[in-house]
Amino acid sequence: MTNANSPLALVRSTIAEANDLLCSVNLLTWDARTQMPKAGAEARGKMLATLTRIVRHQLTSDEFAERLARAEEGAVGEVAAELAQIREGTDVLRRIPARLLSDIAELKARAGETWQAARRNNDFGSFAPDLERMVGLNRELAAAIGFDEHPYDALVGSYEPGMTSARLATLFEELRGGILPLLAAVKERGAEPDTSFLSQRDYPITSQLKAAEQFASLVGYDLERGRIDRSVHPFEISFTRDDVRITTRFNPNWMPMSLFGALHEAGHALYEQGVKPDYARTVFTTDLVGLYAVAGTSYGTHESQSRLWENLVGRDASFWRAHYSALQAIYPAQLEGIGIDKFVRAVNAVRPGFIRVEADELTYNLHIMLRVELEMALMDGSLAVTDIPEAWNEKTREYLGLEVPSNADGCLQDIHWSTGLIGAFSTYTIGNVMSVQWLEAAKRQDPNVAPALERGDVAPLRTWLQENVYQHGRRYSPDELLVRATGQSLTAAPYLDYLARKYRELYAI
Amino acid sequence: MTNANSPLALVRSTIAEANDLLCSVNLLTWDARTQMPKAGAEARGKMLATLTRIVRHQLTSDEFAERLARAEEGAVGEVAAELAQIREGTDVLRRIPARLLSDIAELKARAGETWQAARRNNDFGSFAPDLERMVGLNRELAAAIGFDEHPYDALVGSYEPGMTSARLATLFEELRGGILPLLAAVKERGAEPDTSFLSQRDYPITSQLKAAEQFASLVGYDLERGRIDRSVHPFEISFTRDDVRITTRFNPNWMPMSLFGALHEAGHALYEQGVKPDYARTVFTTDLVGLYAVAGTSYGTHESQSRLWENLVGRDASFWRAHYSALQAIYPAQLEGIGIDKFVRAVNAVRPGFIRVEADELTYNLHIMLRVELEMALMDGSLAVTDIPEAWNEKTREYLGLEVPSNADGCLQDIHWSTGLIGAFSTYTIGNVMSVQWLEAAKRQDPNVAPALERGDVAPLRTWLQENVYQHGRRYSPDELLVRATGQSLTAAPYLDYLARKYRELYAI
Repeated sequence: MTNANSPLALVRSTIAEANDLLCSVNLLTWDARTQMPKAGAEARGKMLATLTRIVRHQLTSDEFAERLARAEEGAVGEVAAELAQIREGTDVLRRIPARLLSDIAELKARAGETWQAARRNNDFGSFAPDLERMVGLNRELAAAIGFDEHPYDALVGSYEPGMTSARLATLFEELRGGILPLLAAVKERGAEPDTSFLSQRDYPITSQLKAAEQFASLVGYDLERGRIDRSVHPFEISFTRDDVRITTRFNPNWMPMSLFGALHEAGHALYEQGVKPDYARTVFTTDLVGLYAVAGTSYGTHESQSRLWENLVGRDASFWRAHYSALQAIYPAQLEGIGIDKFVRAVNAVRPGFIRVEADELTYNLHIMLRVELEMALMDGSLAVTDIPEAWNEKTREYLGLEVPSNADGCLQDIHWSTGLIGAFSTYTIGNVMSVQWLEAAKRQDPNVAPALERGDVAPLRTWLQENVYQHGRRYSPDELLVRATGQSLTAAPYLDYLARKYRELYAI
Repeated sequence: MTNANSPLALVRSTIAEANDLLCSVNLLTWDARTQMPKAGAEARGKMLATLTRIVRHQLTSDEFAERLARAEEGAVGEVAAELAQIREGTDVLRRIPARLLSDIAELKARAGETWQAARRNNDFGSFAPDLERMVGLNRELAAAIGFDEHPYDALVGSYEPGMTSARLATLFEELRGGILPLLAAVKERGAEPDTSFLSQRDYPITSQLKAAEQFASLVGYDLERGRIDRSVHPFEISFTRDDVRITTRFNPNWMPMSLFGALHEAGHALYEQGVKPDYARTVFTTDLVGLYAVAGTSYGTHESQSRLWENLVGRDASFWRAHYSALQAIYPAQLEGIGIDKFVRAVNAVRPGFIRVEADELTYNLHIMLRVELEMALMDGSLAVTDIPEAWNEKTREYLGLEVPSNADGCLQDIHWSTGLIGAFSTYTIGNVMSVQWLEAAKRQDPNVAPALERGDVAPLRTWLQENVYQHGRRYSPDELLVRATGQSLTAAPYLDYLARKYRELYAI
C-alpha cells in the first residue's frame, strides 16, 4: 500500500486524476455560467466534451478494470468499501455504450433550441418529436444500466442510489394525503399575507449582494473558501472542499429571491465545504456514474441541506426574531415599519400557481409529483409523448386545483426534459422530506440544538450536521447515511408534521 | 482524409484534444489569478498538473508517434507543413525526460518561497543554492532538448524558435550602440517632464476600468469575445479566438498603469482574436513544446503586438491629438488644464531606475540585456551563481549609470529565475525591435496607414496586421512571418531610428 505502483495506488491515482478533471469540468461550467462571453460557448462545449470523454475513457479502460480487480484481492475494511464503490460506479459506466451517450449529447444540443422555440410559440407539437426521441434514448439508457422492476429505477438511481419508482409511489401517496387537506384548509382560510413591501419597494442589487453574503456567512458558508456571483439560474459548484462557489440571482423588485436563494445555495455549500479533507480526490468526492466532482452522497441528500437551511432554518420565525434587525440594517427604508411577524408571513405565503420554480414550500412537492409520475409513465410506455399536455393539465387540476392556461405555462415550462434529465426531479421532494428528518434527529440527539435555534444560533445544528452528514461525503449511500444518523430510512411523517405545524400556525387554522 | 480513422484524422484529433486540455489549463490559470479564493490554490495546482500530464502523455505516446509517422507518408503541401510542425514539437517533448520536469516542478514550488524570503530579507545567499540547482536543471534541460553552439540556444528556442545566443549578442550590441548615446543625450538635456498630475490626483478605479475598456475597444479588442478583469500582474490569455481575456491593474495614484496596461494586453488580445477560425484546435494554435494554447507564433512576436499598440500607437502624440478629449471626458477634473503635449511628454518620461517593470521605453531593453547576458553566462558556466550580485551591479552601472542599493532592488527583483524561466527575458526586447518593423512595413505597403494614424484612425494598421500577422497564428515561424511580411529578418535599425526620432523630438535634442 505504500508502493506507488501497487494496484491499489494505481487505482487511487486514476480516481484522483478523474477528480482533477471533473473539478476542471466544474470550473469550466461555473465560468460559462458566470463569466464567459457568449461567443465562447462553442469552444467551451468542446473543452467540456473532451475532458469528460477522457475521464470516461480512463475509468472504463480494460487496464483500469484489471488493476481494480487486482486491488480488490484481499482488500478488507475501509479499503474494501472504497473499492466496492469504485467497482459499482465503473461497472455502470462500462455498461453504457459510448454511442448512446453521443446520441444523447447530440440530441440535447438540438432539443434545447427546439424546446425554447416551442415554449415561445406555445407549440408542444414542435417539441414532441425531439422529446419522443429523448424518451427513447432514456429507455435505452435504462436498459443499458439495468433495473429490476421499472425502467425509471435505473435513471433515478443515478441521482439517488437505492430509490425506485415503487418507493416513490408510496412516498408520494403519503405526501399527498397530508399536503392536499392542508392546502385545502389554507385556501379555505383565505388569509393572503401582504407581500407588497417585498415587491413594490426598490431593493438595490448592491444591498442584496451584501445581504446574500452576510446571511450565507451567518449560517456558516466560509467565504474564504468560496465566493458569491450572479447567474441566471442559481447554483452551487465545487472544486474540492477548499473552493466551493455559489451564485444567486437578484431581482430589484423581489428581494426574497436573492436572500433565500443565497441561504439555499449556502446549504449546498456547507455540505461540500464540510467533507473530510482526506476524502479530497477520492471516490468519496467523485460521482463516477454522473461523472461529477461532488462530495454530497446523492442529489436528494444535497437538496436536503439546501432546503434545511433555506426553509427549516431560514424561513422560521425564531431565526428572524434573532436576525431581522440585521436585515433591516441592510434595508432600512424598505423594511421600515414592517414587523417580524409580517415579514415571516410574507416569506411563507402559500400561493398555488402553475410555475414550479415560483412555488411555495407547501405546493412545491405537488409540482414534482406531477412531473415524476409523467416521467415514470413515459418510461414504461403507459403514456405517449403526444398525450403529455392532457395528462399534465389533468394532474394540475387534481393536485393544485388550477386550469393550465397554455402549454408554455404547463408541460413546456421546465428545461429538464430537453436536456435529457429524466429521473432528477424526484430528488427535490426527497430532499424536502429528508431535511426534516435531519433537523428532528439533531434536536433529539443534541439538546442544545433546539434552544440555540430559538435564539437564532445555528452553530449546534451545523455541528451536528457536520458530524453526521457533511464530513462523510459519499462514503455512505443516502439510505445508510440517514439510518446511521437518524435511525430511519426516508419517511414522510416528520415532514408532514412539520408542514402541518408550520402552516396551521401561520394561517391560524 | 475524410475517414475519421485515417492516421491524419487521428493525429489531428489528438492535437484537438490537447488544445482543449490546454485551453482548460488556461482557464484554470485565469481563474486562479482573477477569481479564485486563496484557499483553492493547493487543489488548483493538482488540477493543473493532471491536465498538463495528460497532454504530455498523449503527445509523447508511442501510439501517437506511430500514427504521426503513418500520417506523414506521402503528405504534401499544407498538410505536410502541419505535420512537420507537430513532428518538431513532439520530438522535443519526447526528448525531455519526465523525471527532469518533475524535478523542475518540485524545485519551482520551493524556490518561489525561498526567493520571496530572500528578497524580503535582502539576502541573496539564502536563494543562491536553489538558483544554483535551477541553473543545473536548466542545463540538463538544454542538453535534453539539444543545441548546436550554446546551451542557452535550446532554452530561448522554446520561446523564440530560431533565436540563438549569437544572434542576440549581435542584436544587443547594435541596440546598445544606439540607446546608450541617446540616453546620455536625454540625461544631459536634463528636462524632466512634469508627471505629478498623473500621480498626485485621484483616479477612481471605476473610471480607470471604463478607460481601459474604452481604449482597448478603440484599438480593436472585441469585448464580445473577451473581458477585462483586475489582477496583480496584468496578462492576456485565450481559450480559442472566441474567448480572449485581458487583465490590468489599477493604481488610483498612477493612472497610466491601467491605461497603457490595457493597451498592451489589448495588443496581445488582437493577435489571439485575429487568428483564422480554421486554425482552432490545430497545431497552429497550440504550442506543443511549451504546452500552451496560444495563437501567437512566439513570445517575441506576441510581445511585438503588445508593444506596438501600447507604445508605437498608444504613446504617440498623433493618437492623443485625436483621442485625448475622450480621456478627458473620463477624467474631467483630473486632466483639467493639462494639454495634450504635456500629457504626451509625461507618459513618455525617461527615468533610468533599478526596477525593470517600472522602466520607460528607452531604458527597458537595457534591463533585459543585463538579465539575458547573465543567463547566457550562467548556462555556459562562465558565471557562478554566487557571483551574480557583483555582475548584476556592474552591468547596471555600465548600462544605466546607477549604483544598485541592495540585491532586493537588483538581482532579486524578478520572480522569473525562481520559476525556472531561463530564456524568456530576451523575448521582451525581440518584441520591441520587431514592433517597429511591422509598423514600418505597414506604412510602406499601405499608403493609408500613416495618414490614418495621424488622424487617430488605427483601422488600416489593424487590417494590415490582421492580414500579415494575426490570421496566421503559428503557421509560420517568427522569422518566416517577419520575412514574408516585411522582407527582412529581425533587425535593430528601424527600432533605433524610431527611438532616436521619438526622444529627440520629445526632449528637443
